[in-house]
Amino acid sequence: MSNESTQTPATPLPYGMPISLHQARLVMQAAEEEATRHHWPMVIAIVDSAGHLVMLHRMDQAQHGSIRLAQQKAETAINFRRSSKAFQDLLASAGEGLRVLSMEGVSAVEGGELLMSEGKIIGAIGVSGMLPVEDTQVAQAGVEAVVLVQ
Amino acid sequence: MSNESTQTPATPLPYGMPISLHQARLVMQAAEEEATRHHWPMVIAIVDSAGHLVMLHRMDQAQHGSIRLAQQKAETAINFRRSSKAFQDLLASAGEGLRVLSMEGVSAVEGGELLMSEGKIIGAIGVSGMLPVEDTQVAQAGVEAVVLVQ
Amino acid sequence: MSNESTQTPATPLPYGMPISLHQARLVMQAAEEEATRHHWPMVIAIVDSAGHLVMLHRMDQAQHGSIRLAQQKAETAINFRRSSKAFQDLLASAGEGLRVLSMEGVSAVEGGELLMSEGKIIGAIGVSGMLPVEDTQVAQAGVEAVVLVQ
Amino acid sequence: MSNESTQTPATPLPYGMPISLHQARLVMQAAEEEATRHHWPMVIAIVDSAGHLVMLHRMDQAQHGSIRLAQQKAETAINFRRSSKAFQDLLASAGEGLRVLSMEGVSAVEGGELLMSEGKIIGAIGVSGMLPVEDTQVAQAGVEAVVLVQ
Repeated sequence: MSNESTQTPATPLPYGMPISLHQARLVMQAAEEEATRHHWPMVIAIVDSAGHLVMLHRMDQAQHGSIRLAQQKAETAINFRRSSKAFQDLLASAGEGLRVLSMEGVSAVEGGELLMSEGKIIGAIGVSGMLPVEDTQVAQAGVEAVVLVQ
Repeated sequence: MSNESTQTPATPLPYGMPISLHQARLVMQAAEEEATRHHWPMVIAIVDSAGHLVMLHRMDQAQHGSIRLAQQKAETAINFRRSSKAFQDLLASAGEGLRVLSMEGVSAVEGGELLMSEGKIIGAIGVSGMLPVEDTQVAQAGVEAVVLVQ
Repeated sequence: MSNESTQTPATPLPYGMPISLHQARLVMQAAEEEATRHHWPMVIAIVDSAGHLVMLHRMDQAQHGSIRLAQQKAETAINFRRSSKAFQDLLASAGEGLRVLSMEGVSAVEGGELLMSEGKIIGAIGVSGMLPVEDTQVAQAGVEAVVLVQ
Repeated sequence: MSNESTQTPATPLPYGMPISLHQARLVMQAAEEEATRHHWPMVIAIVDSAGHLVMLHRMDQAQHGSIRLAQQKAETAINFRRSSKAFQDLLASAGEGLRVLSMEGVSAVEGGELLMSEGKIIGAIGVSGMLPVEDTQVAQAGVEAVVLVQ
């Protein structure tokens, strides 16, 4: 069951228009607020539906490695139309799942989530800096903000 | 038995002449028809016997990550004279099989297959976009088309 | 005057929807016919409005280096919304124009042209394999084909 | 005189504390306002005194190539403690100035400026998307904003 969720769905989600700077601001604001509330020094990156970077904010004292990792998580989500957690789960299942490690550019660390609008992918958010589950929590705050825009 | 298939055979398959554009068209057409029949948005790449890209088609709404991955699968097949599935199986066996992950550029994801003509390798096809087993199915359609050319 | 054409226009051309596989086929066919008519062994690459590779064909006996160069020309055109010839001209003017050589990924070789539809950029075509002016001639055949689609 | 400005000064400017997210916001806001006033679709990047990316905003319809170029300009400024225009001038002087092209990662395109506070370098801003002189104009708006913070 969890295995299914880590594979390409029968009907892939369609790519839509690229997220606008205005929409990205709302997503970023919600994610930053969630991080700030917990005093988590994080890097938050937003890419558009083509995978191009639209916005990146690094909070004071965020670890250097998170600058690249936040982008990699967002790129993984947009490039394969699923959360980076899907790859984390697949990898954790071992066996054939280990093949994830041979896929160039894929981050198998949770914290990368798709940004959807009207059933289409408009971008993705990637968060890095704390525990993976906390990264996801902040990313999720961003995901929910883009829903409210519509 | 499955272990044997993942290792270099005693008598390696010989590299032959590079696949021609004409032959590549027939391979691509067969693979595209198989993908279209199932409404699978895929990327299909064909490299010649030297590993150079000869043809690449990306279907509408194929995931971005498959552009690189389809090429990587074809390159893996041609560079090591075996299907990329051989590396997937080897990796899944764990233990020493994990060494696959240390091999630069190798994709251990099925969907990369050799294109043979008169007992020689003329190229390879790599397919990405859906479930690995479906990627192989489309690649196989291409493999069979090149056989018919002869 | 020629200097102006090599700089970002006051009102940049807008990026539109990505070129479809169907449209790319028509562009490729026209470009290939032009190359074949002259017996020019070339590589022809088409990227979409985001810069992602949609189609690549390498003709028999095209030089290996052209596989990457054709893509680089198309990427240059789409990434900077102008033909790669604009950078070639700017570079040839020397002085400050030399800065082109410091721009990562830019190909200052003609043969990369934008594909426009209804006033918007839907992709770009890059051609490599013969004299730069001949590369442009083949690219132009592709450019005109996409106009006819509309 | 212009030659002096392109060389390392006798007493190099000292690196100071990294720019804070709060300060970066003020710099970004001023730069964005300048760009928006002119309807210029740009990418604006801010790095800290160590060269790490702190903030990046891409305006709608900015050219794709500017995402990397804006960062490259900021990195050039911070890595060599001078504006990227210093390298552009040096390169334009030809002769020995051509050596700029052999320096890895250096962008010899104006639009990258240092952000100073109390006589120390706290970061740099890089802008790309329009004419180089316009890129500088927007970067300068950001430079002046950080001065006001103090």
